[in-house]
Amino acid sequence: MDMHPDIQPLAFLLGTWNGKGRGEYPTIDPFEYDEEISINHVGKPFLFYHQRTWRRPGGAPLHTEAGYFRMGDAGVELVLAQPSGIAEVHVGSLDGSTIDLKSTGVLLTPTAKQIVTVGRRLETTGNGLRYRLDMEAVGQPFQFHLEAELHRTA
Amino acid sequence: MDMHPDIQPLAFLLGTWNGKGRGEYPTIDPFEYDEEISINHVGKPFLFYHQRTWRRPGGAPLHTEAGYFRMGDAGVELVLAQPSGIAEVHVGSLDGSTIDLKSTGVLLTPTAKQIVTVGRRLETTGNGLRYRLDMEAVGQPFQFHLEAELHRTA
Repeated sequence: MDMHPDIQPLAFLLGTWNGKGRGEYPTIDPFEYDEEISINHVGKPFLFYHQRTWRRPGGAPLHTEAGYFRMGDAGVELVLAQPSGIAEVHVGSLDGSTIDLKSTGVLLTPTAKQIVTVGRRLETTGNGLRYRLDMEAVGQPFQFHLEAELHRTA
Repeated sequence: MDMHPDIQPLAFLLGTWNGKGRGEYPTIDPFEYDEEISINHVGKPFLFYHQRTWRRPGGAPLHTEAGYFRMGDAGVELVLAQPSGIAEVHVGSLDGSTIDLKSTGVLLTPTAKQIVTVGRRLETTGNGLRYRLDMEAVGQPFQFHLEAELHRTA
């Protein structure tokens, strides 16, 4: 199926990606994880993004999130749902195969942690994908939280 | 895999559901669609919800959305991402196998339509699932937008 022309600049994201990441934040113990990201399209002007992580060592399910990338006049848009009770909307820039996003809004359910702002940077080089996530949350200033390195497996 | 006890009250949602729906709104022509909803869990305290619709007749991909159900002290929580640039967070009640949700927040990307409030009611009876969606959007008052009837196929 042909990609919708609006999202062809994002074609470098398509595929299944597997790899490892690590996280830290002042309020929690550092941790490591395995990760799988899948990004696909159905011929419409968006990409479906679905991610899962598993704790290292042990393999217990850790985090997951799902959402959509699209292109707008203001740049790349990302809409994201998280099972921890968080929805994020991001707008950001596309420079070659690097996406630099900052949340323009975060919604929380009554049971969610207090996330204020999230920054997400993704870059691919061929079959490699790296990302970094920064956040302002739970009374802490905007700072590093997650980074991972994955490779395209399908 | 055992369900997390927190979400056992939502076990009636699990499965793959197929059926038909219809939509209308003052600003658009009425339309009909085929739909598939899948709802599953990974042993953690949330359900993953993923939905797709296809236009009737013709079968062209129409809408899709993905998100998570969870249970909180205030009732059922739903976090949802839509490729039209919309994120919704809902809180609502659970009465037997009927869920009545109202959005507590809606986030829009710059290219999204102006959705203000969304109501979502789902009810199951055995292997049948019906839902109704109302919304306040694009300058129109809160009113009916979508309804569908599905049956569990897996």
